[in-house]
Amino acid sequence: MTRRLAVIGVGLLGGSVAKAARAQRIAHEIVGVGRDVSRLQAALSDGAIDHATSDLAEGLRGADFVLLAAPVLAIEDLLERAWEAIPADAIVTDVGSSKSAIVRKAESLARRRPVAFVGSHPMAGSEKAGYGVSRADLFHGALVVVTPTDASAAGAVKTVTAFWEHLGARVTTLDPATHDAAVAAISHLPHLVACALVDGVSRATPEALAVAARGFKDTTRIAAGDPTMWQEIFLTNRPALVESLAAFRRALDDLERLIEQGNPDALHAALARIKAVRDGLS
Amino acid sequence: MTRRLAVIGVGLLGGSVAKAARAQRIAHEIVGVGRDVSRLQAALSDGAIDHATSDLAEGLRGADFVLLAAPVLAIEDLLERAWEAIPADAIVTDVGSSKSAIVRKAESLARRRPVAFVGSHPMAGSEKAGYGVSRADLFHGALVVVTPTDASAAGAVKTVTAFWEHLGARVTTLDPATHDAAVAAISHLPHLVACALVDGVSRATPEALAVAARGFKDTTRIAAGDPTMWQEIFLTNRPALVESLAAFRRALDDLERLIEQGNPDALHAALARIKAVRDGLS
Repeated sequence: MTRRLAVIGVGLLGGSVAKAARAQRIAHEIVGVGRDVSRLQAALSDGAIDHATSDLAEGLRGADFVLLAAPVLAIEDLLERAWEAIPADAIVTDVGSSKSAIVRKAESLARRRPVAFVGSHPMAGSEKAGYGVSRADLFHGALVVVTPTDASAAGAVKTVTAFWEHLGARVTTLDPATHDAAVAAISHLPHLVACALVDGVSRATPEALAVAARGFKDTTRIAAGDPTMWQEIFLTNRPALVESLAAFRRALDDLERLIEQGNPDALHAALARIKAVRDGLS
Repeated sequence: MTRRLAVIGVGLLGGSVAKAARAQRIAHEIVGVGRDVSRLQAALSDGAIDHATSDLAEGLRGADFVLLAAPVLAIEDLLERAWEAIPADAIVTDVGSSKSAIVRKAESLARRRPVAFVGSHPMAGSEKAGYGVSRADLFHGALVVVTPTDASAAGAVKTVTAFWEHLGARVTTLDPATHDAAVAAISHLPHLVACALVDGVSRATPEALAVAARGFKDTTRIAAGDPTMWQEIFLTNRPALVESLAAFRRALDDLERLIEQGNPDALHAALARIKAVRDGLS
């Protein structure tokens, strides 16, 4: 049970955490911190948060659990600005979708002043952003990756894990680098590819968009994601994304070669192998 | 109103046409033709077809509307085998997803013996194949592209258009080459890219598949398609697909360059432009 939960950034993820924490009664008190306090009014009147402030130090005062729910690029800076004001006994986590740089930053700050930080990445979201689309059940059945390192206190890892589980999530633990490679492969790369699909088609054969059916729409749905969020994700996870993209290009080259060669059996075998992998994903 | 509808190939598409034609009462009699007559029993006992035969000539006898619903690679061969047995007053269409080669074949056969052929491509389907997944409402609201040429009789184009409209479809008319370029861009290319995504990830970072969330699953859903069908589609529409793939690669290269350069503003502008296109697709 959390005494005072501080949610820094009350958008889709922060707002959903506040609503879910309220619904599950896992925090006595919930404080929302945002740059513009007038934009926290909706969360206040919904009862998702009890207090709203734009003052980071005030928001952190007395908190025993701190959630940094800013955009991924802002989290490093936020750690820097918040660090000294975080209560000594508090446990801190975040929602950034790339973890290596954030965790590195927190561990470097912890050498100056020890604070228990364990990174999280809730793999729930939407192509929409903002408090308006937040929901108490956003984490229900969703996967949250928690990314401790050798430097993490076992108790803090347990608390962060339990926090997400209480909100309805399934938790998996990965080290930050493994996490970043995995999300590059299954989230950032598909997003980049979906963007390139939309862009390639709209530039080369715009008239084709008029006949776009379900297949194209499903494959490119994620290309409607928030440009600010995705620009930050692509740039913060650049090394892992570039590697993942290279693996994708190799696979695409191989398939194109089979098509160019006009070899039906080899092409069939490759497609059957791929189908078996995809079928295994449920 | 069709007197006798001959459906050659009673799988997902042929079976759905038979069921929809029955439900809409647009054919007095429906004949199903398949290589293995025992596999037509389900359609017979459903009442989707009135007669079942494995004899092509028998199936075509007395038909005034003929639907060739074989896999795309088999349609050219089927046209060749069926042509002499098609009644002189019949109107013939098909469901092949690449049109240039099929239409060329039909027009070459028509120089030997005139038969009214107009190509169709119903853009409805599923990652599943076979009569078992056919449905009377498969074409409800679906787009069907009809692909006449200068050689097509206006009456036949009208009849084929009306046929699909009676089954609930919206019909668009494109010449075969424009159709092939369009479906390469919005169907065959996304399929190939989805396959390369699954293959690239499963070969380079198989452990990442365990954390695959909705984005990856949506983007790669079509990679679970029937390997036989897709091998044939890729090979029959190879020239248009290769062009479309080149446009995709240019777009992907451009995005990767913006990421490598670490230019947030230019990357944001590209993603915002792409989002606007995708948002426009509904």
